[in-house]
Amino acid sequence: MITDLSEEKIIQSWNKNSAPWVQSVRENRIESRVLVTNQAIVEAVVSVAREQVLDLGCGEGWLSRELIKRKLSVMGVDAVPELIEKARLSGSSRFEVMSYEDIANKKLELTFDTLVCNFSLLGKKSVEDLFQAVPELLNPGGYFIVQTIHPVFGGGTEDYTDGWRKGSWKGFAEGFTDPAPWYFRTLSSWFELFRQSGLEVIEIQEPVNPVTKMAASVIFISRVGAEFTGYEIDQ
Amino acid sequence: MITDLSEEKIIQSWNKNSAPWVQSVRENRIESRVLVTNQAIVEAVVSVAREQVLDLGCGEGWLSRELIKRKLSVMGVDAVPELIEKARLSGSSRFEVMSYEDIANKKLELTFDTLVCNFSLLGKKSVEDLFQAVPELLNPGGYFIVQTIHPVFGGGTEDYTDGWRKGSWKGFAEGFTDPAPWYFRTLSSWFELFRQSGLEVIEIQEPVNPVTKMAASVIFISRVGAEFTGYEIDQ
Repeated sequence: MITDLSEEKIIQSWNKNSAPWVQSVRENRIESRVLVTNQAIVEAVVSVAREQVLDLGCGEGWLSRELIKRKLSVMGVDAVPELIEKARLSGSSRFEVMSYEDIANKKLELTFDTLVCNFSLLGKKSVEDLFQAVPELLNPGGYFIVQTIHPVFGGGTEDYTDGWRKGSWKGFAEGFTDPAPWYFRTLSSWFELFRQSGLEVIEIQEPVNPVTKMAASVIFISRVGAEFTGYEIDQ
Repeated sequence: MITDLSEEKIIQSWNKNSAPWVQSVRENRIESRVLVTNQAIVEAVVSVAREQVLDLGCGEGWLSRELIKRKLSVMGVDAVPELIEKARLSGSSRFEVMSYEDIANKKLELTFDTLVCNFSLLGKKSVEDLFQAVPELLNPGGYFIVQTIHPVFGGGTEDYTDGWRKGSWKGFAEGFTDPAPWYFRTLSSWFELFRQSGLEVIEIQEPVNPVTKMAASVIFISRVGAEFTGYEIDQ
């Protein structure tokens, strides 16, 4: 049985909603993406990326296509087969069906200059396991970039504490059903998750929505921390 | 002439309001301090401090006294003479009248294991210059800890962008006049300020008010970054 607030429920919900999702993204129906966050994540990746990019939770492939246009070599992975199918039909990147559990279990035997997650980190343990696997997926000097819902501006009126929250398709077009739950993390918890995974956050961005004048998301740019590279500073 | 939104106005306002401030702190009249932030800053300092602590913007000396109780050796500095006078009468720490400009100009020829600023960073340039001076004030392996108003929970409804804001004594007892302006920084700007000053943030805390269940402040714990110590990792 799949419980309401669980990793499995997230995947089940996205499998159900892949068709309206593809339509929403491709028809530019998600206002905050069009106004702010699409450009913000592309610029963040371009600011650090050298060549090989892995788009983790790539969905129908929007970000991969944008990065290909900017002369980067991109591979996209997602746990939802229907989204990967749409992605493959839409662009020249390599797209594979792969869950974060697969990634954490080292099924992807490749390394990259940049890993990016664009609003694709929704779970608890799946996300924590993925973070643990990040340093080994990065080439030396590589970057791990995450754009996610801003914990304060986007956290609603619930208590400011980590925990599972019910999903909602509020603000989305018709056609969506059975929203995915998500695991809320405070800003300090996100920061701690990077550090616990051997990653040093070198920049925090808060892209501001030009209409509301409030932050529309948060972007963390991180790299493998000096303490975890094997290059000890006192050598 | 002192303009309304300026560094000079901050000092002028605190000189005017030192008497009601001393009373508010000593009579535990500031609810968020009593409920959350006093304990949070003491615990943060104790978690990293070894021996010599510098309390920057110490005011009437509350934090210095708390840290002395915990067997730390504390020096307090503040730009407001009347506050330093009260501090000297209240505890055994060494207290000196000194502005952040004095500190930035290296008038303090000492180093410390931990520097702490507890709600004492209100200006723009004065704060930036102080940050630049921090690495040289720290003993090797030392920490710089800042507790400040949470940029999102405490930022009000104004645009989420850096800039001078008018002060207010709303919520304070009677007796306060002519509130000090303050320079608002977004969370990303605070983080960038640390990095630009050669400081690596190793922890972000967001102490939660048990009544409102929202973050009452933000605490940054930082240390001199590996890149700035003179110990290059490729040596």
